[in-house]
Amino acid sequence: MPPVMHAEHHLTSSAMLQDIVIGLSDGLTVPFALAAGLSGAVQSSGLIITAGLAEIVAGSIAMGLGGYLAGRTEVDHYSAEVAREHEEVRTVPDVERREVQELLAEMGLSPATQALAVKELTADSQQWVRFMMKYELGLEEPDPKQAPKSAVTIAGAYAVGGLIPLSAYFLTATPQAGLLWSGVITLVCLLVFGYFKSRLTGQAPVLGALKMAATGAAAAAAAFFVARLVSGGGH
Amino acid sequence: MPPVMHAEHHLTSSAMLQDIVIGLSDGLTVPFALAAGLSGAVQSSGLIITAGLAEIVAGSIAMGLGGYLAGRTEVDHYSAEVAREHEEVRTVPDVERREVQELLAEMGLSPATQALAVKELTADSQQWVRFMMKYELGLEEPDPKQAPKSAVTIAGAYAVGGLIPLSAYFLTATPQAGLLWSGVITLVCLLVFGYFKSRLTGQAPVLGALKMAATGAAAAAAAFFVARLVSGGGH
Repeated sequence: MPPVMHAEHHLTSSAMLQDIVIGLSDGLTVPFALAAGLSGAVQSSGLIITAGLAEIVAGSIAMGLGGYLAGRTEVDHYSAEVAREHEEVRTVPDVERREVQELLAEMGLSPATQALAVKELTADSQQWVRFMMKYELGLEEPDPKQAPKSAVTIAGAYAVGGLIPLSAYFLTATPQAGLLWSGVITLVCLLVFGYFKSRLTGQAPVLGALKMAATGAAAAAAAFFVARLVSGGGH
Repeated sequence: MPPVMHAEHHLTSSAMLQDIVIGLSDGLTVPFALAAGLSGAVQSSGLIITAGLAEIVAGSIAMGLGGYLAGRTEVDHYSAEVAREHEEVRTVPDVERREVQELLAEMGLSPATQALAVKELTADSQQWVRFMMKYELGLEEPDPKQAPKSAVTIAGAYAVGGLIPLSAYFLTATPQAGLLWSGVITLVCLLVFGYFKSRLTGQAPVLGALKMAATGAAAAAAAFFVARLVSGGGH
């Protein structure tokens, strides 16, 4: 078995697939639950559509822009830590050398091999800093192009996910009929999505499908009862 | 400088603080933007409160339960990978030994030291698997107690964050007055939250505060215009 093939066993999914999963998970759940909640409290499908679309826009921007800024922060954070490690390697090399040695001891190397390895790893300061970043801090160099891509993918997936439950209210006459069809369509989508998401991450797919659907159903049921309670007392 | 003190320089924040940040980021933004959106489309503060509370409940459950299930999946995934590595160390030790050697070569060790280190690291199968988990797969053993704690913290932070913008609609007579006060209160909270969040993660705090407030404002403005557009045409 060639090593490349072997390594692929552990790969779970690409960055884009992960972003789609993040966006769809919340997009299918929250707008669905909000619309379900309002179905128990208001008489107009138009109002539910207005609130649902406002939520989809708000959620897409919050998730997309939030994800973009988090990605930019990660890039800045990595650069700052690289600069700090370079500084430390220059100013307190003995402390940094001891840290390399402690890491190697923790891996399970003998003192003699630790001494050899410390000498080789700290011979070149670029390599030394790369070693500290990856193995002391556990940081991989982030791709600066990833943040805008992730933002668009997450926001798009959230919007697509949210429009699925909301579409039922466009196509039915009353909030009650909308809720019924929205529930049916969304639970089917959550089951299918949970099934494939679990397969991607190597989990039991049927159990994953049921968990995903149960999360959506729990959020929708809770929103329904809270909205009914509030609207019953409030207006 | 003792090594423990030194290591703390890189620590950004505890798991609980991170969960609070996750919950507050979305909690302050999405319910605020939804309420702002509806303020441009409906005449009743009661409706905005109903929709806002339904959204807060839906979002808290989706984020909390979603986070809980993701945490459980991570624990299961780790166990499955440990079992797989043990199996591979038993059945294809030469492949696994070559992987250890490739990792050591990538760190920058000489072939002679690689050979020594491979021998020592693969002498004990427990240690060998621990090495593969941490340095080949980059996986740390997750704490099984973390998932329920994170779920409660994230859901609670989302609910607290969401009630801040919504509180303005309880205390004012019209959606327009609610929107004004909600905007003022929420932007102040986003600035303060962005400031402290940035300090926690070692970023420029004033810039971080402005970015956080801009995200909330962008989401609210977009939701406002979409809701007004839809309700103007719809009912």
